Amino acid sequence: MKPIASNRSKKDQLVNRARMLISCPDRPGIVAAVSQFLSEHGANIVQSDQYTMDPEGGMFFIRIEFDLDQLTARLPQLENDFAPVAERFSMNWSISPASKKKRLAILVSKEDHCLLELLWQWQAGDLYADIALVISNHPDMRELVESFGIPYYHIPVTPETKAEAEAKQIELIRGQADVIILARYMQIISPEFLKHYPNQLINIHHSFLPAFVGGKPYAQAYDRGVKLIGATAHYVTEELDGGPIIEQDVQRVSHRDNVDDLKRIGRHIERIVLARAVSWHVEDRILVYQNRTVVFV
Amino acid sequence: MKPIASNRSKKDQLVNRARMLISCPDRPGIVAAVSQFLSEHGANIVQSDQYTMDPEGGMFFIRIEFDLDQLTARLPQLENDFAPVAERFSMNWSISPASKKKRLAILVSKEDHCLLELLWQWQAGDLYADIALVISNHPDMRELVESFGIPYYHIPVTPETKAEAEAKQIELIRGQADVIILARYMQIISPEFLKHYPNQLINIHHSFLPAFVGGKPYAQAYDRGVKLIGATAHYVTEELDGGPIIEQDVQRVSHRDNVDDLKRIGRHIERIVLARAVSWHVEDRILVYQNRTVVFV
Amino acid sequence: MKPIASNRSKKDQLVNRARMLISCPDRPGIVAAVSQFLSEHGANIVQSDQYTMDPEGGMFFIRIEFDLDQLTARLPQLENDFAPVAERFSMNWSISPASKKKRLAILVSKEDHCLLELLWQWQAGDLYADIALVISNHPDMRELVESFGIPYYHIPVTPETKAEAEAKQIELIRGQADVIILARYMQIISPEFLKHYPNQLINIHHSFLPAFVGGKPYAQAYDRGVKLIGATAHYVTEELDGGPIIEQDVQRVSHRDNVDDLKRIGRHIERIVLARAVSWHVEDRILVYQNRTVVFV
Amino acid sequence: MKPIASNRSKKDQLVNRARMLISCPDRPGIVAAVSQFLSEHGANIVQSDQYTMDPEGGMFFIRIEFDLDQLTARLPQLENDFAPVAERFSMNWSISPASKKKRLAILVSKEDHCLLELLWQWQAGDLYADIALVISNHPDMRELVESFGIPYYHIPVTPETKAEAEAKQIELIRGQADVIILARYMQIISPEFLKHYPNQLINIHHSFLPAFVGGKPYAQAYDRGVKLIGATAHYVTEELDGGPIIEQDVQRVSHRDNVDDLKRIGRHIERIVLARAVSWHVEDRILVYQNRTVVFV
Repeated sequence: MKPIASNRSKKDQLVNRARMLISCPDRPGIVAAVSQFLSEHGANIVQSDQYTMDPEGGMFFIRIEFDLDQLTARLPQLENDFAPVAERFSMNWSISPASKKKRLAILVSKEDHCLLELLWQWQAGDLYADIALVISNHPDMRELVESFGIPYYHIPVTPETKAEAEAKQIELIRGQADVIILARYMQIISPEFLKHYPNQLINIHHSFLPAFVGGKPYAQAYDRGVKLIGATAHYVTEELDGGPIIEQDVQRVSHRDNVDDLKRIGRHIERIVLARAVSWHVEDRILVYQNRTVVFV
Repeated sequence: MKPIASNRSKKDQLVNRARMLISCPDRPGIVAAVSQFLSEHGANIVQSDQYTMDPEGGMFFIRIEFDLDQLTARLPQLENDFAPVAERFSMNWSISPASKKKRLAILVSKEDHCLLELLWQWQAGDLYADIALVISNHPDMRELVESFGIPYYHIPVTPETKAEAEAKQIELIRGQADVIILARYMQIISPEFLKHYPNQLINIHHSFLPAFVGGKPYAQAYDRGVKLIGATAHYVTEELDGGPIIEQDVQRVSHRDNVDDLKRIGRHIERIVLARAVSWHVEDRILVYQNRTVVFV
Repeated sequence: MKPIASNRSKKDQLVNRARMLISCPDRPGIVAAVSQFLSEHGANIVQSDQYTMDPEGGMFFIRIEFDLDQLTARLPQLENDFAPVAERFSMNWSISPASKKKRLAILVSKEDHCLLELLWQWQAGDLYADIALVISNHPDMRELVESFGIPYYHIPVTPETKAEAEAKQIELIRGQADVIILARYMQIISPEFLKHYPNQLINIHHSFLPAFVGGKPYAQAYDRGVKLIGATAHYVTEELDGGPIIEQDVQRVSHRDNVDDLKRIGRHIERIVLARAVSWHVEDRILVYQNRTVVFV
Repeated sequence: MKPIASNRSKKDQLVNRARMLISCPDRPGIVAAVSQFLSEHGANIVQSDQYTMDPEGGMFFIRIEFDLDQLTARLPQLENDFAPVAERFSMNWSISPASKKKRLAILVSKEDHCLLELLWQWQAGDLYADIALVISNHPDMRELVESFGIPYYHIPVTPETKAEAEAKQIELIRGQADVIILARYMQIISPEFLKHYPNQLINIHHSFLPAFVGGKPYAQAYDRGVKLIGATAHYVTEELDGGPIIEQDVQRVSHRDNVDDLKRIGRHIERIVLARAVSWHVEDRILVYQNRTVVFV
């Protein structure tokens, strides 16, 4: 399957669009200071979303999209000029050109549905990112992935070779990708791996977390007799299935559905939920604070 | 608020409609034997739902609605004649006249939304049952409940008086109600109480079970940062929040929603989910097997 | 039913919170000008939502919540000072104290579910408004409404007395209410009535508009064999069921549901959808432009 | 993309499972007669769903799954023996071996998402059918389709060549496929074509019918300012977008979504809704009566 027309998004045109993410302790004057700064530098705010966490003395979060003529050339100076403003308010902040695609590394095991969804959305232009490489502990999806013109690496993982395998993965990813997607990758990621990619590693868990943590969630769901099953996309942290939740969705099931039916129905939820989470991440729509996400959609 | 027109349902007309519930080990010929029996007795099947649990050698469940002239007069004989058929297939079974309303006792604490929903649906004729009495460990809702013409009993509960209070509750309910609804009743029901009402005691839990078992589920949900919150109606068993699930539903929330918002949104889910579960129960739509429900809707 | 504790919302405390709504043609510098203005006047922005309609040269919409010490005393001066800013950008704008409740007049015919939902949410403190009066062309709900301490006016409507009845309605409402809710009021509102309340008159239509415009939408839905039914809350305009849509929702139905079932299921959707729309309206979350709404939730 | 393992469904094992569909005027004794017949022939009913259309004197619909040893060999005799029973009740009826795959012809224009979904679900074993061929009025998807090992035919259609093109399509399909799927095929099907495939021709319409009939439904939806968009799978009849509805679903949108966003969101609804409808059709779950479907799921 050849990528006939990839990434044909309207976003290609937005060469002068930037996205600014800020989180800081709330206090009066933040919006005024930032918007004044942008206005003085000739930037036009086209979208902004803001949230202040209760109670008083909480955190302040803002996402601003702005247009600035000759963005690429002027961005370094803009960042330089903004630093003192940011310091005044103790901000965590970033400015990213909207036209600069994030680079993804996708890790996958034997289930192909999440990978396929990402490939299809990428090819349809709905996922504005570069898929730099796919790594799997199984050889099965090589032909599929390479037919999209994307490199595929088969790195087997056994309990004995796990550390070595991770070292190979990191070596392959380093410099090639900013974001790692676990698209039904059935191996635990080590803390060492994680610390290279804080809040840049997204997993899809096949249950409505925090119900059914760990393995075989559909069998657990069947045993409990739930009437809805779900999937959860979350950032990976050291706590198994415990990282900040990005997105969740569910679908109705009934007593008629056995474990295989739950898996089949679940596959559709998983791929939609993961694709949404990845889209929001690459469009700089997510801020993480403690173990929660602020998602501006 | 006076009940202007209660229970105006079309079901009032169904004086000759009966509902048959059967569960038994699956083997060939069950449907034929039952439908042949009904046909020979002049009954006309107007609805049937059937489910066989996998794998082979599993359980068989069927719900049949049939019409029979002069049902009330002929039901005892019909039951008598069916007994040998039932014995041949080792059936658990029941036949209930659709026109015979089940009698509910509602237990409630301080939150009124679930009780109000049941009262409204009862008054609108959507809940085909008699509400025999309301018992509360608080006095607050007396005026509300009595305005519907329903008796209200205030039985305070303290750790010291719990056993005595339960004894009073059982005495009030005995002979008055077949089904007990915990409409946000915030006391644990004792095993002694439970054994009087096997699979006749329905609770609404304010979370998507099995996530957030126990107290303060909305605070737990907020802390975990979930993107959907839910409610679960289930039969009460000795295991806290562990009984067979009847119905669940969820609603989307976001980082903007604090614990109070989750409670407010949750109230709407709770009342809808509980009302659905109670309707299905009083319409003989639920069979329980082990810790799971078969719900024919 | 006595209102035990009405409007106990946290919002009561927000005596210094104001909401600013602005719509104007988009051009650079709007956000900077407004936030700079607020900052200079000592106001602290706690929430802002913004939307620019595509394409270039489109409209700009913003909703800002801000806190200002001694808001009530200082608001007239603030409005005065803002006028030149607003004029510079050709703004439609308003500033409303969050603590000032909007006053509702509810019109109803014979179906009580939407009215009951509003009364319950009002009593629970979820609907932050005053319900000034209820007007009906039927006498049925007097006892219910008066039990909430709310005046009830029965104004019969016949084809011959319609103009006269509307005159009476307007007279009752004038000075008592800012917003009119048609909670299943089954009479057409005349253009003369409408022009008194531009974008202040909310109707609930019992279908997913624009499907099934006009009367008997559930019968129409049944005939068409749809698999989802819905409800639509919209501002009333001269075009029947054609005004700006505020909110819609749907629920799944099947071939088993006859027209009465659709009505029953529909009642639950209608009351939820209308209550959401009214809440958003009274919280100044809706801007109308041409025949579309911008809803900041 | 090579089909690594297609149609690996559990259903492959069901060599002795058959599905019986019956519709007829309702009268007493139908279920008894059918279940007695099956029992006497040694068949074991494993699933049955039944529906009687109100009011009295309405239609009766039943779907029965049964197991019969040596089904393939005995089916002709079974059908022969059932004919008199069917005649007695004026039944429309069919018995299909569950293991016999239906053969699909897919027609497509330029949008590939619905076709892709069907190919994936087929390859994953979730769609239990043979995809016999794909026909398009555009050449674009040849490589994709052929990579699945499925024949692709490019038949251009112009106003002048429409009749000739249809003749070619019919010739290609005849004997190769029983069911025709319009997977975003943007040409009107002629009445001549339709009469070859009564209730065997499924279309996906990109709106929540009956809203937005005809072309450019997403532009219509945007103009109307709806808050939910949908898709509808239906059997094709001579009335444009007016045939019996099989399945519908919707997703929430907001003022932020322009027409392109609606199309993007809509693509996900369309493919899910079409795939569900096709699955139900090939599993003999749908009966059509007048302009409505009875779907036993």
